[in-house]
Amino acid sequence: MLPTERLPVEPADATKLIHAIGFVERTGMVIEEVEQGRCVLSMPEEPNINHFGTVYAGAIYTLGEVPGGILFFATFDVERFFPLVKSSQIRYRRPARGRLSVEASIDPDEVERLQAEAEQHGKADYELELAITDETGKVVATMTSQYQMRTHGSLS
Amino acid sequence: MLPTERLPVEPADATKLIHAIGFVERTGMVIEEVEQGRCVLSMPEEPNINHFGTVYAGAIYTLGEVPGGILFFATFDVERFFPLVKSSQIRYRRPARGRLSVEASIDPDEVERLQAEAEQHGKADYELELAITDETGKVVATMTSQYQMRTHGSLS
Repeated sequence: MLPTERLPVEPADATKLIHAIGFVERTGMVIEEVEQGRCVLSMPEEPNINHFGTVYAGAIYTLGEVPGGILFFATFDVERFFPLVKSSQIRYRRPARGRLSVEASIDPDEVERLQAEAEQHGKADYELELAITDETGKVVATMTSQYQMRTHGSLS
Repeated sequence: MLPTERLPVEPADATKLIHAIGFVERTGMVIEEVEQGRCVLSMPEEPNINHFGTVYAGAIYTLGEVPGGILFFATFDVERFFPLVKSSQIRYRRPARGRLSVEASIDPDEVERLQAEAEQHGKADYELELAITDETGKVVATMTSQYQMRTHGSLS
């Protein structure tokens, strides 16, 4: 059971997060599915194409970066906590063409551990691993990011 | 001595590379300096700001990704070779505000080694390490990327 009862997450509310960052909005990224502990995002080829006719490396990175925020918003009480990205590692597996997708999820046990730790110490570290796939299901990139969950007011 | 005599690199020509990728052009990134083996790029805060009022993580990554291409263009014979980014690791050091800058350089000995290896095997691996700094010179992020130099026609 999740530690805090929350209302269901509305995709329209999570979409506001995308619109809050112009850089992300301009990629045309959309939220396909979102619920507590899980989200699926996708991004069109245009306007993210490079001079080789494939999806630009920085756009692929961005598609892998955004789920961390969406998942956090969908899972934790954002009145009390916020996430910081500390570091990321991306591995490009093959040239990326067409619409790309990414799914991110976090375990209920991990949610409980992080919330308890952040409540006690003002911060808690966690990691997300993602695979970015094309329309045929092929993995075009894998990405691992290290985050820190913080309580509001914990940053000077 | 560099293995191939080339004409001096014009910043205007290198800027065409930025304009060739809409995603990069929309960041407002500019080439401050470029010469064979070295480039300096900068990026304004707007339109790259996030909902915390700092530069968005994906924009910082993009500023660290582009020098690889600019440096390659400025250093190697692009009629014969092109670069692929294989993987990247970024570490965010502090919240980033204002105009950010990055410098990338490659040693003449390394240039010679890579060109000889690519000529012989059709490919050659190399790595770039970068520091992204703010206007006060503080490092806001560090990034390491692994590239592969290829001869045209070496990709199926």
